Amino acid sequence: GRKRERGLFWLSLLPCLYVTSLCTAEQGLEFPSFDGKDRVLHINERNYKKALKRFDMLCLLYHEPQPAHKGRQKQLQMTELVLELTAQVLEDKDIGFGMVDSQKDAKVAKKLGLEEEGSLYIFKDDRVIEFDGEFSADTLVEFLLDVLEDPVELISNPMELRAFERMEEDIRLIGYFKGEDSYYKAFQEASERFQPYIKFFATFDKTAKHLSLKMNEVNFYEPFMEEPAILPGRQLSEMEIVEFVHQHKRATLRKLRAEDMFETWEDDLDGIHIVAFAEEEDPDGYEFLEILKDVARDNTNNPELSIVWIDPDDFPLLTTYWEKTFKVNLFKPQIGVVNVTDADSVWLDMSNDEDLPTAEELEDWIEDVLSGKVNTEDDDDVKDDYDYDGVDREDRHHGDDHEDHGDYGDHDDSG
Amino acid sequence: GRKRERGLFWLSLLPCLYVTSLCTAEQGLEFPSFDGKDRVLHINERNYKKALKRFDMLCLLYHEPQPAHKGRQKQLQMTELVLELTAQVLEDKDIGFGMVDSQKDAKVAKKLGLEEEGSLYIFKDDRVIEFDGEFSADTLVEFLLDVLEDPVELISNPMELRAFERMEEDIRLIGYFKGEDSYYKAFQEASERFQPYIKFFATFDKTAKHLSLKMNEVNFYEPFMEEPAILPGRQLSEMEIVEFVHQHKRATLRKLRAEDMFETWEDDLDGIHIVAFAEEEDPDGYEFLEILKDVARDNTNNPELSIVWIDPDDFPLLTTYWEKTFKVNLFKPQIGVVNVTDADSVWLDMSNDEDLPTAEELEDWIEDVLSGKVNTEDDDDVKDDYDYDGVDREDRHHGDDHEDHGDYGDHDDSG
Repeated sequence: GRKRERGLFWLSLLPCLYVTSLCTAEQGLEFPSFDGKDRVLHINERNYKKALKRFDMLCLLYHEPQPAHKGRQKQLQMTELVLELTAQVLEDKDIGFGMVDSQKDAKVAKKLGLEEEGSLYIFKDDRVIEFDGEFSADTLVEFLLDVLEDPVELISNPMELRAFERMEEDIRLIGYFKGEDSYYKAFQEASERFQPYIKFFATFDKTAKHLSLKMNEVNFYEPFMEEPAILPGRQLSEMEIVEFVHQHKRATLRKLRAEDMFETWEDDLDGIHIVAFAEEEDPDGYEFLEILKDVARDNTNNPELSIVWIDPDDFPLLTTYWEKTFKVNLFKPQIGVVNVTDADSVWLDMSNDEDLPTAEELEDWIEDVLSGKVNTEDDDDVKDDYDYDGVDREDRHHGDDHEDHGDYGDHDDSG
Repeated sequence: GRKRERGLFWLSLLPCLYVTSLCTAEQGLEFPSFDGKDRVLHINERNYKKALKRFDMLCLLYHEPQPAHKGRQKQLQMTELVLELTAQVLEDKDIGFGMVDSQKDAKVAKKLGLEEEGSLYIFKDDRVIEFDGEFSADTLVEFLLDVLEDPVELISNPMELRAFERMEEDIRLIGYFKGEDSYYKAFQEASERFQPYIKFFATFDKTAKHLSLKMNEVNFYEPFMEEPAILPGRQLSEMEIVEFVHQHKRATLRKLRAEDMFETWEDDLDGIHIVAFAEEEDPDGYEFLEILKDVARDNTNNPELSIVWIDPDDFPLLTTYWEKTFKVNLFKPQIGVVNVTDADSVWLDMSNDEDLPTAEELEDWIEDVLSGKVNTEDDDDVKDDYDYDGVDREDRHHGDDHEDHGDYGDHDDSG
């Protein structure tokens, strides 16, 4: 039964996460295909300790019990097969993979501290990392390769410092230490708790001067901010650093990333997200993003503000879904409020292509969102008064004629 | 028979290109699942004209005849299902999708000019665009959305100009025109022949002065080059621009991209590629890349030199395959020569982490490659004299002890 069914499935999975080029004589770009070998363990009370001991790293998928519904059954099997392909691709890296059933293996789950069904838990040394991102082999493999790297990267020359400075999308910490002493060790221990989501860097030499870091000082860079928050240069304990990161980690402007997209989305503010769509590769999108960064920098101390920036280029399969769900045209930059309970949304009217809002206009709108003046519930009555920035091609090709519909486009997306 | 088999397949495909989060109450991030509806046409002599007329854009997969081999049969079905999911995701965009069998539909294929089995041909207006990249729904959807955009982007303020200047990875052309006159029209027609692989920009205003563009002048930027090649400001014909692009389009340093990876790989120089692996997000990788760019800038006029830069972050599923095939450690930057016929390779020894090669040292090595002094055939005898920069974890964690094995690491990858 089960064995045969799995056989069918891996055969069909084989070329679907990738399809190798059908016709090429050249060697060097062969995408892997699942070889059908079982590598994912079914973890239970008898084997979990052994598994933890056997591998440098153990990845456990905590999943719902075998569902009765056919579609969800297939989904679970597919999840397992994504794990199988990941395990195969990373075969030489000494990583174990397993599944834990939230019902049958409830005891083990409790012992291991597994809580969220659908999450992958990675056990490395004495810590646990939760993965709650896009469950594709691509994303998983990249994530696990990141976890294998050292949690602290050393910066030792001006070129590497430039690389550090360019990573404005990420939360980054950098510390200046004499060497691998106890000050550094506390920093390193702290880094392990956030790897690979938050990046830790250290320098042991005069590179620090370019950042005007004092000895034993740690700087925390929020995404897109030019000035760091400073932890003073005294003996910092691991917990002091950890506390500080927890306090600051919800950024004023944060980019949605495949590796923690669901976690970010679940971290809403009172049931809503302010969402900005902008393609960084597009001149318009880039310009809008620069305005957005200005706004974020001006409001970095407002704990109620956290804008989620989505670059549609990072999520091709979701682009048209978002266009339909939110009734916006993602060939252009957009900003709006999304209610995460029902995906109801309201979008700022930016239908005049030539004229993106200024930072001030954007701030006014955000203020209206935070005060509740702009919200996703009021729009049902006014739908006839406002036009929406629709997704139809006519609109895209022939420019816009919505300029005179008021400052904000209120959209109706019922039905 | 066939219908039932397809049913099985789409059921299994359903959640495997993406697995939706198994447990979330929030709305707004739902990955699409294939709904099982047939959207991909089987193109033949009777229906191809109608299909061309019916859609704004028609995408035809030119494929091998139904193979006898089971594995290849599944592969072909999966390819079709990637097309089906793509068609579903892009349902509202007025794009048609079809399959053309290279044997059964040979006549139609000939009429339509389809030549390379496994390629996707996109018919838009009166031109044909060939897609020879990674055949995944992600890559395809992103590619087709790019094709839907206008082939020329207008640059109309300093911020957009900065966006243009940041796109150093791409081949870009920018022209300065009075407006949508005949000069501009020729530029636009030329742009359509290269969309979306080569990016075309135009400006109608004083933004041009920042680039010191003269009226009707067109500048061509090779990737990573600071100075453009200039097409003089006179009435340029479409063909003059097209010719110029064809002459210059094989860049001295080119980044491997999912959307044309197989085409790039097939464009080898005498059966070899000089391949550089570098993670741009990594300080070491960034530093190496900067050195590489210096070398490329110094040698931009050498038609025999074209280095393929691969960022492993862009191809997670290929990373460990490359590590095995080429016997290199991709946690660090690498540069080598790859024979595309047998994937035999030789890599520059950079085992001393602290000490990346200088631009001069890299140039010397490249000279040795181009002169044949370093090549993939000589290494069989010397394998005992040289150590290789292996991929085992010990190596990664405990630093390197290969410093004294000579300038170049010659690797044996037979067997």
